[in-house]
Amino acid sequence: MLSVEEALRIVLGAAERLPPVSVRPHEALGLILAEDVCAPDPLPPYRASIKDGYAVVASDGPGVYPVITESRAGNDGLGTVVTPGTVAYVTTGGPIPDGADAVVQVENTEKVTDNENGGKRVRILARVSKGNDIRNVGRDIEKDARVLMTGEKLGSPEIGLLATIGVTLVKVYPRPTIGILSTGDELVEPATKCLSRGKIRDSNRAMLMAAAVQHNCKVVDLGIACDKEDSLSEVFDAAIASGIDVLFTSGGVSMGDRDLVKPCLSKIGQIHFEKVSMKPGKPLTFAHIITDSKQNKLSKPILAFGFPGNPVSCIVCFNIFAVPAIRKLFGWSNPQLQRVHARIAHPISPDRYRPEFHCAIVRWDDDDGSGRPGFIAESTGKQMSSRLLIMKSANALLELPATDQIIEAGTSVRAVLISDLNNISMSKLTEQVVSSS
Amino acid sequence: MLSVEEALRIVLGAAERLPPVSVRPHEALGLILAEDVCAPDPLPPYRASIKDGYAVVASDGPGVYPVITESRAGNDGLGTVVTPGTVAYVTTGGPIPDGADAVVQVENTEKVTDNENGGKRVRILARVSKGNDIRNVGRDIEKDARVLMTGEKLGSPEIGLLATIGVTLVKVYPRPTIGILSTGDELVEPATKCLSRGKIRDSNRAMLMAAAVQHNCKVVDLGIACDKEDSLSEVFDAAIASGIDVLFTSGGVSMGDRDLVKPCLSKIGQIHFEKVSMKPGKPLTFAHIITDSKQNKLSKPILAFGFPGNPVSCIVCFNIFAVPAIRKLFGWSNPQLQRVHARIAHPISPDRYRPEFHCAIVRWDDDDGSGRPGFIAESTGKQMSSRLLIMKSANALLELPATDQIIEAGTSVRAVLISDLNNISMSKLTEQVVSSS
Ligand SMILES: [Mg+2]
Ligand SMILES: [Mg+2]
Repeated sequence: MLSVEEALRIVLGAAERLPPVSVRPHEALGLILAEDVCAPDPLPPYRASIKDGYAVVASDGPGVYPVITESRAGNDGLGTVVTPGTVAYVTTGGPIPDGADAVVQVENTEKVTDNENGGKRVRILARVSKGNDIRNVGRDIEKDARVLMTGEKLGSPEIGLLATIGVTLVKVYPRPTIGILSTGDELVEPATKCLSRGKIRDSNRAMLMAAAVQHNCKVVDLGIACDKEDSLSEVFDAAIASGIDVLFTSGGVSMGDRDLVKPCLSKIGQIHFEKVSMKPGKPLTFAHIITDSKQNKLSKPILAFGFPGNPVSCIVCFNIFAVPAIRKLFGWSNPQLQRVHARIAHPISPDRYRPEFHCAIVRWDDDDGSGRPGFIAESTGKQMSSRLLIMKSANALLELPATDQIIEAGTSVRAVLISDLNNISMSKLTEQVVSSS
Repeated sequence: MLSVEEALRIVLGAAERLPPVSVRPHEALGLILAEDVCAPDPLPPYRASIKDGYAVVASDGPGVYPVITESRAGNDGLGTVVTPGTVAYVTTGGPIPDGADAVVQVENTEKVTDNENGGKRVRILARVSKGNDIRNVGRDIEKDARVLMTGEKLGSPEIGLLATIGVTLVKVYPRPTIGILSTGDELVEPATKCLSRGKIRDSNRAMLMAAAVQHNCKVVDLGIACDKEDSLSEVFDAAIASGIDVLFTSGGVSMGDRDLVKPCLSKIGQIHFEKVSMKPGKPLTFAHIITDSKQNKLSKPILAFGFPGNPVSCIVCFNIFAVPAIRKLFGWSNPQLQRVHARIAHPISPDRYRPEFHCAIVRWDDDDGSGRPGFIAESTGKQMSSRLLIMKSANALLELPATDQIIEAGTSVRAVLISDLNNISMSKLTEQVVSSS
C-alpha cells in the first residue's frame, strides 16, 4: 500500500499554482505575490524629524534662539532656511527645513517669553550632533527598492507596505474554488429534526466547507448525492460546470457494492491512488478530472479528493493531503504543514499495522517534562474514525509509526500542527466530554 | 512609566465580552460558544456496521450461508431477522439487522454461486467474536451528551459536530466591530500617485484593517482625519454613531502641539494610560469612550486605542494590547498571546532603557543549536519604528528586557507568536530587502 509520503508526493506533483490575477491590495490579504513590487519614491520622501522638537544647526549648541518657522507637514517651512543662530519648530514625521542639520527633542528645550516684536523664541538645553533625530530621504525605503517579492505572503504589514508605496493593483495567485459533496443514502441535511431509521445527519460537508473557508478558499456547496452512478455523474458535471479548481467528496470509497465515487471518477479522469497506508484515512482516493461525463475535455484539470466517510478520517485526510495541495494552488513555495516535536503527557498505544495520525492538543510549557521548555501533547482520547469528538479542540496530529509497543509518557514525537497555536481559547485544556469509551 | 504587564492588565480589565447572539452554524466559524450544546439523539442512532461485509450470528462460524437481506441505509433490512444459519449483507455505516450480533468484513468472505432458486449465498471464512465491527447505539455520542461547551471555540470539527446533532441556531459571542482612523496632516490616500512636499501615503489604516480582518473582526473605515480638534471630534462622533465596539486611531499621540487624539478622547471619555514603557510603542494611549462630543452618554462604552503613528509601533501595539482585548470581546477565557521560547540565531543588542519587542521570524528546527529540537529566531534587521519592512514576514516579537549587554547567539528568549506558524509560505526565510541601514 502507498505510504503517506509517496501519496503526498503524488498530490503535490499534480497540484499546480493557479494563474495569477490582479486585485486591489485589501483583496490580496493572505495571498501570495506573483510579482516583485518596487517603491516608486523614497520613504521618507523628504528629510523627516524623528521627534517633536526643534530643527537646529548642530554647531550652534545650547542657548536661546528665535523660532523662524513651524514645520509640521505639507508645505510648512518651504522656502525658509534655518541659518546659524535660528531654529524651526518641527513635529514627528514633519519635514526638516533647509539649512537645519539636527533636531533637539522638545524634552531638551525650555519655553521662554517671546521677544518684544512678538517673535517666538526657545531655549535649547542640549548639544546634539549633526543628523540627530533626522530620518534622511529613503532611510526606510529607498527609491526603486524591491519592497516585496514574488512568492511572499501578504499579511497585514505587507498590506501596509503596499499602501506606503501607492500600489493600487497587485498581481497574486488567486483563491482556489472548492466544490464540496457528501455521498451516501444514509445522509440527511443537518437541519433534519427527527431521524428516520438508518439515517444520520451529514456532518462532513459542513465541516469541510468550514475547513476550506478557514484556509481562505471559496466554496461551492454541492449538497448530498445518493449512492447511484447517475446521481453522482450528474453532480460531478454540475460541479465541473461551476468552475471549481478542486472537488472534495466524502463517503463512497469503501469496499461496499454501492461505493461508486471511484468508478465515477475513473470515467472522467485519472485515479492516482485509492488507498494510503495510514490510520485513519486508508480509503483515501485522489484523482484528476479531465473530462465531463460526455467526455468533453476540460479547459483545466480539476483535483479530486475522495475522502472517507468517517468524519475523523475525512478531516485528517483533508489536513494531511488537501491542505498542502491547496497551498500549492495558492502559490506557496513550501506547502508542507508545520511539524514540531512534542512530548506526550501519557502513554499511547499506536496502531500496530499502519502509521497513525493521533488527534492531540499541543501546548507550550516552560517545562515539557524534560526540565526544559517545549511542547506537551495530550491525546484527545480513544481514537475512533467515526467519533468526531476526538477532533474537538485538536490542534495537532501526532505522527506515530506503526508498532506493537506502548509509547511511554515523556517520549518526544513529531506533531503536525493543524491549527494556529494561538487558537487555544480556554485557559485550561478542554475537559473531555464524558463518553462510553 | 507603566509597564507592559500593568498596561495589559488595565486593557483586559476594561474589555468585556460582547452580549451573545444566535447565529446559524456556518456563521459561527471561529467564534466562542455562549451555551452548552447537547445531542438530541445518539450517534449512531442505530447499531451500525464498521465495515463492508456480512452481519452474522457470531456463534455460527465459517461456512456457506444464505444472504437473506441487504442493509445499506434507510429502511433496509427492516423487519428481517438474521437467525442462526443466515447472514445479511451490510455496508460501512449501514444498520445491522435484528438478530445479527457481529460483522465479518468482506475481505474475510468469498463469493459463491447463488443457489438453485436464485437465492444469494456467501462463504464466511473467519470466526469473529460477538460485537465484532459493530458500533452500538450512542457509541460516538450518547443521547443528551454535552457535545460542546460554553467557552469552546468553533473550528471546522466543531461545525461538523453541530451538523451531526442537528443544531440550526447556536449562541455565540459576536464578532467585534472596529472603527479605524488615521490622523495627520501629512497623510494622503494610498492611491495617490505623486506625493507633494511633506506628504506620505497612509499605511496604518490599510494595515490595521487587514490585521483586524485577520482576527475575524468587522471593520469600519473612518478615513484620514487632519490635525484639528474639530475634524477629530466630528470623526469620533461619526464612528460612535456607526455602532463600533472598538476605535483604533494612529498618530497624534506624541509630544507635538497638534497631537490632539488624547485631548479629544479625554473630552468624551476616560484615558486609562498614555505611555507604556516599551520599545517600540511608548506613546500608546488607551481610553474608554463613554459619551459623544455633546456629552450624550453612550449605551455601551467603546474601547479606544490611540496607536503611535510610526507603523512598526502601531502594529506592535496592536498585537500586544489590542489582540488580547479583541479576544476578550470575542469571549475567549484566555486572551493572552501564545508565548514560546526560541534561541536567537545571532547576537542582538536590545534597547538599554525600555523592554523591547524585537520583530523576528521563528521557525522550528530539528536542532535549535543546543543539539535538541526547538525554535530558532532570526531578527528581521535593524529595528526602527518607522521602517515597516522589519515587520515583513515577521511571525514573532522577541520579548527582550532592557539591558546594555549584547544577547549572545544561541540564547533562549521569550517569543510572542503573532501569526500562525503554518504561515511561512516560502521554503527559505525571506531574503531581506537590501537597504541603506
Ligand atoms: Mg456510503
Ligand atoms: Mg501626527
